Amino acid sequence: MRKEIPYKIYLKEQDLPKAWLNLRAFMKKKPAPLLDPVTLAPITLNSLSKVFCDELAKQELDDSSKYIPIPQAVRDFYKMYRPAPLIRAYCLEKALDTPAEIYYKFEGNNTSGSHKLNSAIAQAYYAKEQGLTGVTTETGAGQWGTALAMACSFFGLECKVFMVNVSYKQKPHRREVMRTYGADIIPSPSLTTEVGNRILQEFPNTAGSLGCAISEAVETASRLNGYRYVLGSVLNQVLLHQSVIGLETKTALDQYGVKPDVIIGCAGGGSNLGGLIAPFMAEQLQGKADYRFIAVEPASCPTLTRGKYAYDYCDTGKICPLAKMYTLGSGFIPSASHAGGLRYHGITSTLSELYAQGLMEARAVEQTSVFQAAEAFARVEGILPAPESAHAIHVAMEEALNCKRTGEKKKILFGLTGTGYFDMMSYEKFHDGKMSDYIPTDNEIETSLKNLPSLTR
Amino acid sequence: MRKEIPYKIYLKEQDLPKAWLNLRAFMKKKPAPLLDPVTLAPITLNSLSKVFCDELAKQELDDSSKYIPIPQAVRDFYKMYRPAPLIRAYCLEKALDTPAEIYYKFEGNNTSGSHKLNSAIAQAYYAKEQGLTGVTTETGAGQWGTALAMACSFFGLECKVFMVNVSYKQKPHRREVMRTYGADIIPSPSLTTEVGNRILQEFPNTAGSLGCAISEAVETASRLNGYRYVLGSVLNQVLLHQSVIGLETKTALDQYGVKPDVIIGCAGGGSNLGGLIAPFMAEQLQGKADYRFIAVEPASCPTLTRGKYAYDYCDTGKICPLAKMYTLGSGFIPSASHAGGLRYHGITSTLSELYAQGLMEARAVEQTSVFQAAEAFARVEGILPAPESAHAIHVAMEEALNCKRTGEKKKILFGLTGTGYFDMMSYEKFHDGKMSDYIPTDNEIETSLKNLPSLTR
Repeated sequence: MRKEIPYKIYLKEQDLPKAWLNLRAFMKKKPAPLLDPVTLAPITLNSLSKVFCDELAKQELDDSSKYIPIPQAVRDFYKMYRPAPLIRAYCLEKALDTPAEIYYKFEGNNTSGSHKLNSAIAQAYYAKEQGLTGVTTETGAGQWGTALAMACSFFGLECKVFMVNVSYKQKPHRREVMRTYGADIIPSPSLTTEVGNRILQEFPNTAGSLGCAISEAVETASRLNGYRYVLGSVLNQVLLHQSVIGLETKTALDQYGVKPDVIIGCAGGGSNLGGLIAPFMAEQLQGKADYRFIAVEPASCPTLTRGKYAYDYCDTGKICPLAKMYTLGSGFIPSASHAGGLRYHGITSTLSELYAQGLMEARAVEQTSVFQAAEAFARVEGILPAPESAHAIHVAMEEALNCKRTGEKKKILFGLTGTGYFDMMSYEKFHDGKMSDYIPTDNEIETSLKNLPSLTR
Repeated sequence: MRKEIPYKIYLKEQDLPKAWLNLRAFMKKKPAPLLDPVTLAPITLNSLSKVFCDELAKQELDDSSKYIPIPQAVRDFYKMYRPAPLIRAYCLEKALDTPAEIYYKFEGNNTSGSHKLNSAIAQAYYAKEQGLTGVTTETGAGQWGTALAMACSFFGLECKVFMVNVSYKQKPHRREVMRTYGADIIPSPSLTTEVGNRILQEFPNTAGSLGCAISEAVETASRLNGYRYVLGSVLNQVLLHQSVIGLETKTALDQYGVKPDVIIGCAGGGSNLGGLIAPFMAEQLQGKADYRFIAVEPASCPTLTRGKYAYDYCDTGKICPLAKMYTLGSGFIPSASHAGGLRYHGITSTLSELYAQGLMEARAVEQTSVFQAAEAFARVEGILPAPESAHAIHVAMEEALNCKRTGEKKKILFGLTGTGYFDMMSYEKFHDGKMSDYIPTDNEIETSLKNLPSLTR
């Protein structure tokens, strides 16, 4: 008989993963290499090290080491907020009257409010080890910026965050959290960079975009002594660090003999989804299991479901390496009515390749239905989810309701990436019936895709 | 040899307390009884049941049952966010370079952001059991209102929250959290009640106060069919429910053979402090231990350190029962520069009596030093504390620094009641150097105390 499953499964500290799992190393057909934005040839370690810390540049290019040890200082920091609980959604199951079992890994129990801290602390650690002065980055909804500010504060690094202007204005509280951790916050586009100047001249009233903020952060890092750029999603290194989510989840499920049938995560740049599925997909790639994986993206930024699999720039300014990925074009900016994160034009190359190989499904959902799911979830499970996370909730609930119709007792696992405490303006719109759904037209997407770089790969 | 203590001690679900501890039952000299506001005689169960649910009225008057079983439905709800972690502050100890061991019980890992949910769910449960339609309450900083909204949503009860006007304006995000859980939020004072009308006529520009919001909530409950009033602090029943904090803490410490030397909590109405110290004080009262207890209050609302131990009204409108407690007078309103909660003019009668008997110390601290402590704490321990909680942090740090001077390896325990995510406007003031300290003059306090009811008790 199976052990009774508690509401929350907390691993012991000694069960925290000792190594990250490098999903690419398990793939027979690897994701295509990053390209140098100048030469358009596969990027070299040397060239990458000018942007990233040495050790992170190495991790970025390493597609053969299956496991990479987690440094002790990072593991110690993890202990301050990990292991994160794996929660059995007993109350949601009851509310939906479904025979399915629903599990979610909750990453919101830390001040960044999300899983972003998992990679921020690793990146700050390697920067400190290299003797750097500080790092630059960009942030949209603010979770990554907060996470990095916390990590830098812990290791005594300077931290400059380019915050997408619309978020800077709409989320002053996020800004203050980052200031509490000593970070310097610059609204983007700004006049402090060349690319910012250029964009402001062309679009004086722009609300900003992640792609633009990335360009500004990269430019600033290259100008300042002892600085490097760090990024909270999309990169291989980030997926690597985020594998701690999936590793903990799998250990917890294994302790109770639970094998999920379907694994669901929200997908923007792909950091959460890539981390959650890592050990499960690794099993799948070795022919040891047969899971269904579902990436959930906003209908307003439908990278996987309507984008093109091609080489593209990771940033608006076109100064970062190019990645082969599903993309809507580096100039794509979702409608201003879009709430929360998941607004990036591309998605990490590993998930792109897995999707291209048919190993993963994708679903695009509209934001009002996402907020409906968020509110229903909050009322029974207590946790107030971030809009990003609610994309996964929405599809998990759909799957559970399917089970109700079919009578199947499927085991549904999803990633609850974070809390929505700093998204209450979006919730207010939703409560007041002022939230709209916007789906880009085919024409808009085609126009944006016309600017893809012409490459034969 | 002592077992190695992890960063976070999580009890197992089966170790969750099965009964609350009723601290009054352990006291030889009991707190003075509540008085009926009309007859000024000790209040009867019958009279109290017009305001509170029957079962809660019973709990309010019960000073002899040492333990009261926690209903299964409440225990099940507790499992959604409890056990709360007991955290060893390794990083803070290192930062302070102290030989002391610092422990804190963190109650912020739930959407209400604080310990308030512990009593909210119990009160909502008893209201539902009695077949009521809904409940009314007041909220200041918003933690209690959020907690009650969550609890009512879970049990399908209506919930009307009178929110102190200044908080209603300054904390629209809190309001939206409560709306997410379906609650009805009314800024107080309002024109929906007689007492609100009266106060608005006399003070048209008032920022509101907890005392006034209480009066409005009580009046509304008495007017509506199937409604009762519920309260998040001060009451005996609330202290009872909050004993879950101390019980879990003690179980966790006992598992590692740790006996705290000093136990510190912030004190407003007293719900957190009363809950945290409950099992420890019960030991003390039985002569089985010798702990130091410290209540920390804001210098701008110095109830214990500068108030009078006397019978007073619990609300501005003088329609609630009277309690014998340390009080600054029911008309006392802290300076508008005061941030966060802990702004109540009195403190629960049990803690008042313990303080009067010399079993507890009290310390008043100024808010800029509180925010300094909050920021220093956040930077090393990760958690961004609520201003209320930071009062306890401040004194815990002082005690740890004392140990550094004396070389003592004291074990310091404090209650970290919640997170500060909805207090970023106050943090912003602090970051911008715009936060001031206000200490009421002796004359102000004397004037306020002149309005105490004249009673011989």
